[in-house]
Amino acid sequence: MYRVDLNCDLGESFGNYRIGQDQKIIPLISSANVACGYHAGDPLVMNQTVALAKEAGISVGAHPGYPDLMGFGRREMNLSSQEIKAYLTYQIGALDAFCKVHGIRLNHVKPHGALYNQAATDSRIAKAICQAIAAYDDSLIVMGLSGSRLLEEAKALGLRSASEVFADRNYEPDGSLVSRSKDYAIIKDEDLAIERVIRMVKEGKVQAHNGEDIFIQADSICVHGDGQKALIFVERIGQALKKEEIAILPLGATI
Amino acid sequence: MYRVDLNCDLGESFGNYRIGQDQKIIPLISSANVACGYHAGDPLVMNQTVALAKEAGISVGAHPGYPDLMGFGRREMNLSSQEIKAYLTYQIGALDAFCKVHGIRLNHVKPHGALYNQAATDSRIAKAICQAIAAYDDSLIVMGLSGSRLLEEAKALGLRSASEVFADRNYEPDGSLVSRSKDYAIIKDEDLAIERVIRMVKEGKVQAHNGEDIFIQADSICVHGDGQKALIFVERIGQALKKEEIAILPLGATI
Amino acid sequence: MYRVDLNCDLGESFGNYRIGQDQKIIPLISSANVACGYHAGDPLVMNQTVALAKEAGISVGAHPGYPDLMGFGRREMNLSSQEIKAYLTYQIGALDAFCKVHGIRLNHVKPHGALYNQAATDSRIAKAICQAIAAYDDSLIVMGLSGSRLLEEAKALGLRSASEVFADRNYEPDGSLVSRSKDYAIIKDEDLAIERVIRMVKEGKVQAHNGEDIFIQADSICVHGDGQKALIFVERIGQALKKEEIAILPLGATI
Amino acid sequence: MYRVDLNCDLGESFGNYRIGQDQKIIPLISSANVACGYHAGDPLVMNQTVALAKEAGISVGAHPGYPDLMGFGRREMNLSSQEIKAYLTYQIGALDAFCKVHGIRLNHVKPHGALYNQAATDSRIAKAICQAIAAYDDSLIVMGLSGSRLLEEAKALGLRSASEVFADRNYEPDGSLVSRSKDYAIIKDEDLAIERVIRMVKEGKVQAHNGEDIFIQADSICVHGDGQKALIFVERIGQALKKEEIAILPLGATI
Repeated sequence: MYRVDLNCDLGESFGNYRIGQDQKIIPLISSANVACGYHAGDPLVMNQTVALAKEAGISVGAHPGYPDLMGFGRREMNLSSQEIKAYLTYQIGALDAFCKVHGIRLNHVKPHGALYNQAATDSRIAKAICQAIAAYDDSLIVMGLSGSRLLEEAKALGLRSASEVFADRNYEPDGSLVSRSKDYAIIKDEDLAIERVIRMVKEGKVQAHNGEDIFIQADSICVHGDGQKALIFVERIGQALKKEEIAILPLGATI
Repeated sequence: MYRVDLNCDLGESFGNYRIGQDQKIIPLISSANVACGYHAGDPLVMNQTVALAKEAGISVGAHPGYPDLMGFGRREMNLSSQEIKAYLTYQIGALDAFCKVHGIRLNHVKPHGALYNQAATDSRIAKAICQAIAAYDDSLIVMGLSGSRLLEEAKALGLRSASEVFADRNYEPDGSLVSRSKDYAIIKDEDLAIERVIRMVKEGKVQAHNGEDIFIQADSICVHGDGQKALIFVERIGQALKKEEIAILPLGATI
Repeated sequence: MYRVDLNCDLGESFGNYRIGQDQKIIPLISSANVACGYHAGDPLVMNQTVALAKEAGISVGAHPGYPDLMGFGRREMNLSSQEIKAYLTYQIGALDAFCKVHGIRLNHVKPHGALYNQAATDSRIAKAICQAIAAYDDSLIVMGLSGSRLLEEAKALGLRSASEVFADRNYEPDGSLVSRSKDYAIIKDEDLAIERVIRMVKEGKVQAHNGEDIFIQADSICVHGDGQKALIFVERIGQALKKEEIAILPLGATI
Repeated sequence: MYRVDLNCDLGESFGNYRIGQDQKIIPLISSANVACGYHAGDPLVMNQTVALAKEAGISVGAHPGYPDLMGFGRREMNLSSQEIKAYLTYQIGALDAFCKVHGIRLNHVKPHGALYNQAATDSRIAKAICQAIAAYDDSLIVMGLSGSRLLEEAKALGLRSASEVFADRNYEPDGSLVSRSKDYAIIKDEDLAIERVIRMVKEGKVQAHNGEDIFIQADSICVHGDGQKALIFVERIGQALKKEEIAILPLGATI
């Protein structure tokens, strides 16, 4: 039987500021990537998000980012490998504390924003991230862009890895995402997006923007929970997966 | 045989800013209270401080404080119990991550600055701190001012607690510290200070500023490591303890 | 002719986080209190808010708060007078820079949240705020709760002051606001709220919650712009004022 | 008569953290570049630094940096031009407020750390900085590395500029600084360093590390005030300048 994980970035509210509809999206997914207080999230939000995830029975992962709340972790920062490792250790430990308090296991780590993007192509950054994860708990699963350096470095260190795909993004022939600066970066046709996701899971293939078929591994599908339209799309993906008898399962879960 | 712990607040540097002489004080003490990034400390500093403590074979505790770097956690903030609990969980988990990475156990928790002072007299705050600690790991030792509410709440929750005394501070007849605003707050005579510490450990007594003898439990002596004079005083305390055949041992250590 | 100012706290978004509907509320009011980056707001938001205010021809005031983004400036912090003064100078100057860049004058200062509430009853805090304002620019108008210490201190220092009233809040017989912890704190009947505001402006009186008529000075009415319902209420207040031939004018504006 | 400015980065302490010996260096220099709270400095420190500068009769400039206290503004951040402009406006205005309170004029702006270095070679960043300065006060002097893009953009916008040189750094043949990663980056021979500075001021020339003489404009010499050795070196530079009858004068000061 086919299987795939549905993941969403959550717990991105901060203090008096609300982002996302965590309570509505959580029942529709299998993995929550929870912000850890550096680019978003605060201890109250982390506590509540982990509680909601536990209640829904979904997996929890750490979603660490750059120490840049004002830029939401989306701006590249030039950090040393030592800094990246220490910032990852700090954030993963902080989130894990809430998992511990709620009696659940931390399951995976997915870097956020600029850190995620840089880790896709920069081996030094990818390696620092994976070393931090391995040193903390080598049973954690590293989630990253399919075909990214991050996943390569995870494998090189003997860590489990999960290849993430995007339903609503176009791909370059080399398997990287088409830059958001291009007008064909986003797949706007929802039917097509869902069709592509099904094919990625079942056949391990997707059509790049130039029409060429490329190989892609789809361990987890990234979805968004901000806004009514996004929620409905996630519901549609979930229904389509079920219809195709593709099980929606957390990363690493045994059937 | 008599025993006592020598503790010092450490890891209070931040980024380019240096405070304390951690490398010099660590060999002289048995417990390090390590700042967790809220009132002081950053991930690089936490990592290095835990590494130094491990190398010296001393115990590590979390030293969480208010989220007020500009005020070094010394300014009272009016937080809800939920906020205190979540901030404690966050900071303890973050520090514990560095302990885990370095293969040592987190041994205790000692609140910092205004949080420490408020927890000495405010049961609500003391309780929130202890609940956070118990929920995270009920084998952790709660360190607080001798006779404080914090220690009462720790006991009420079934947590182990350690009563902290100060060599260089005068005491009120009720066992509380003489306020720093009084000119007799500090014991300036080092010989007297050491004599008082020995008596606290051996007899469980100290003379309050009014001349009255009061009971005091001395599980751990707080020392300071900022400046040459402080370091020499710690060395003197250590020598005096050894001469009196008082073992300097981490909290909870079995002889 | 009667006159009153309508003010609203604005520019409280931060980075990726949105709060308030600044663009919609600005055309309905005469004064914007703009957050200065400590409890809320960031430089991009400040720039945009000042630009919107200028475009609409309304007055701009600084809305400084405690350095506590995580608590949105709503948690009391125990600061020295020197700290309060320096934090006010910093925030007022930062906002004034955007006024200068956009070619408008900074008109008033209204403290935010816990600082506002503490300045209403604590003379030391009120005085520190007013001293900072006077030292920076003694033509600035100090806005505070009607009957507050803040306004007393402003007058004592020779500063112009503006007495703020709330349409939707009940008053104690001594002129202070009924605490939000009481179930009768809020006036839920919008017609009654508007009637009360008109009377405050025209007669300088309002009925306290115990039925007693008290004197109140209404230089400015505080309104809220978060949510559709709030916006409609502001529109209703504006229409009622116009119907009563009460001019809606910025603080200090000459007719 | 020859003239030159001696400048030093000051006001870099933060909260409980001390950096630099501001009180000792201020009497030896003619311009203070004061940190503005983003990469270093806080309102109390800014207030005190401006007060000290005023007392000594030296000029005050803003020293804005990236919003990265943990990295002391030394780590490159990928910001948009809009962000750079708004962050500059904010910081310059905040510092200017303290100048206003102390009754002195803000004289110049010198970017800090990574922002300074990037503005030396990246025209987009240099332009954003200069646009922010021009929009705030076009009489401010822009201080930057001799030969940098920053100074070019300042001139293009009609701003006054000041070319900064380093006594203790080696230069590349193109006028840029030899990277600190090279072992010949620093001139360790103090006599040679002073000789070079005198020649830069008098002849407008310096010998690059390859032996070639290059043109260099020396409007201001950057000195450091952290540590006894640095202070003595500044005193020596001052004495040498006086001996050579080179006046030490703030930027833009008329003789």
